[in-house]
Amino acid sequence: MNETLGDLGEFEVIRRLMGVVPAATGSAPGVMPGTSGDVLGPSARAHLEIGAGDDAAIIRPRAGFELAVTTDTFVEGTHFRRDWIDAEGLGARLAEANLSDLAAMAAEPRWALVSFGVRSDHATGDLVAIQRGIATALGRHGAVIAGGNLSAVRGEEWMTLTLLGEVRTGTAWTRAGARPGQWVAVTGVPGRAGAGVALAAREASRVDDPRWAELITAWRAPRARVELASALAPTGSVTAAIDLSDGLSSDLARLCAASGVGARLVGEAWPADPALEAAAHELGVTIESLRFGASDDYELVLAVDPERHQECLRVASELQVPLAFIGVLTEVPGVFLESSSGAIEPIPAGGYDHFRFTGP
Amino acid sequence: MNETLGDLGEFEVIRRLMGVVPAATGSAPGVMPGTSGDVLGPSARAHLEIGAGDDAAIIRPRAGFELAVTTDTFVEGTHFRRDWIDAEGLGARLAEANLSDLAAMAAEPRWALVSFGVRSDHATGDLVAIQRGIATALGRHGAVIAGGNLSAVRGEEWMTLTLLGEVRTGTAWTRAGARPGQWVAVTGVPGRAGAGVALAAREASRVDDPRWAELITAWRAPRARVELASALAPTGSVTAAIDLSDGLSSDLARLCAASGVGARLVGEAWPADPALEAAAHELGVTIESLRFGASDDYELVLAVDPERHQECLRVASELQVPLAFIGVLTEVPGVFLESSSGAIEPIPAGGYDHFRFTGP
Repeated sequence: MNETLGDLGEFEVIRRLMGVVPAATGSAPGVMPGTSGDVLGPSARAHLEIGAGDDAAIIRPRAGFELAVTTDTFVEGTHFRRDWIDAEGLGARLAEANLSDLAAMAAEPRWALVSFGVRSDHATGDLVAIQRGIATALGRHGAVIAGGNLSAVRGEEWMTLTLLGEVRTGTAWTRAGARPGQWVAVTGVPGRAGAGVALAAREASRVDDPRWAELITAWRAPRARVELASALAPTGSVTAAIDLSDGLSSDLARLCAASGVGARLVGEAWPADPALEAAAHELGVTIESLRFGASDDYELVLAVDPERHQECLRVASELQVPLAFIGVLTEVPGVFLESSSGAIEPIPAGGYDHFRFTGP
Repeated sequence: MNETLGDLGEFEVIRRLMGVVPAATGSAPGVMPGTSGDVLGPSARAHLEIGAGDDAAIIRPRAGFELAVTTDTFVEGTHFRRDWIDAEGLGARLAEANLSDLAAMAAEPRWALVSFGVRSDHATGDLVAIQRGIATALGRHGAVIAGGNLSAVRGEEWMTLTLLGEVRTGTAWTRAGARPGQWVAVTGVPGRAGAGVALAAREASRVDDPRWAELITAWRAPRARVELASALAPTGSVTAAIDLSDGLSSDLARLCAASGVGARLVGEAWPADPALEAAAHELGVTIESLRFGASDDYELVLAVDPERHQECLRVASELQVPLAFIGVLTEVPGVFLESSSGAIEPIPAGGYDHFRFTGP
């Protein structure tokens, strides 16, 4: 039962991975079938004409929709450590990272391709569990794995997910639709994931310490805001969005740069978060450095028309998604923080650079 | 000028990679522009609404078309050695591998995502040259890079291309459409790429030996049969296809299994190939082991209606693509070879298993 990939060989491993991929339901012949899982929305299944097992998968987007396409990779030692997360959780987290990109475009997730670079001594059951984690997380949002690729590596392992979603033609949110005078909204509590990683990096036992559970969970099991984005899009209240994959100061600066605006955040507008405060104390850093610094929370930053902010709050409340307005967009380039004393200071970019830092 | 990725940092490297990615031409605001290259067909450009630089790329498939989606990864030491191929050639080869998958579905290549896993001491100019190789090869077929991802690794480097193409709804070739009585056609000379790799693996200097140039080039610079597939598809003469990425015996066996047929190949029907004969002699193996064994030629195997085979030959001839009929499909499962003496022997599967062999 602990057979490695090397024991079974590439094609048997692929066959087992395809066991967690849906059989295509189109009328086209020649589909090499996987077994249908429970994780699939019927709409996605109906539009996967030919799945994994042919030279390419065939998908059928609906008329009147464009496709949003994103890809994200997790590398062992950089994006994950296996002693911090189990196999299904790891797969789910990779899926959520990609789902979050589609949420930031207000697109509906539909089809995914999964590529693994794995060592030949990797346990097959573990790899299948990662695939199942991906499929389950995608399935919660109606998306399916349509195909993929498997490669042997000798160094660190990695996994890449490419996700396609549908969005009504011309209605995708971009980073560039923000205007001066709009309000800046964030979902959840940005900074939690980075705080969790920082705590665990200093002392591994904190991964399972109940005191830090909220922060570790924020890193380990983020939930992309797909439903919120789908519900907000038709209201027209949001004109630009970005997801938080590097950290608030970096990602907000990107949205501002793309839109040709600046942002002035208000310190007091931030939602209180005892867990983040405790982490700042424990780590000996300011809470601002956690809020604004490197953190992959997979939350959303939204540019919202002020006269429609109540509608935003109502939609978020119905979906039980925390939403806070933390500042305004201005014509002055840059991201600034206004303190309770009225002082305005620039917030330095503090995101993650893959070629300059190591972690987690 | 020899700055590494670590010298420049992730975001400057991404900016330079985006320099070989087209600026989107749609009316959507907020596109972080790359510079338009010369490599782009106007049709592809017109349908890339939002390119790299947002949370996701937005693409707009034409009405009446499905999408064929494929992904392929090259891993350093397994799929390539940098002393065997230059940067642009490496990128082009990755593109051709993916283009070949779309050719096997009779789909038109349109949009691609590129993911790199690279070490921080990698020269930035080299990475940009790989990206340019990808973009140039895609551009020959009217496809563009729409986005991607960049990750740091410490072990072997890798690159993944995900390619999307359009195919008229319901007209994609699959592996499963073959019927007994049809003829088996192959393009080019399968086995050449594998012979080239085998020669170079035994003695590195052969990579630049003019005597083996045809075989080394078959490995180094394959040309996916995209145009041939596009020209053959409307004739209706082809009912199933697969591309040769592992080796003829393995890939033909897959097509047969998916279609529920077998194949009987005729030894004499094979196109004469002095280069392959010389390689067999040099390597001390049979020419059959090169023809049928592990080889990533990115040629096509086609199931063709006999009464339409002349039409196939005419189309191939017009496009100057070598096409040979090498056998027939039968109701007997398996792949067999009929020799000049009339003896019929099974051809063992001889493809590449990523977890059981090392190479090249």
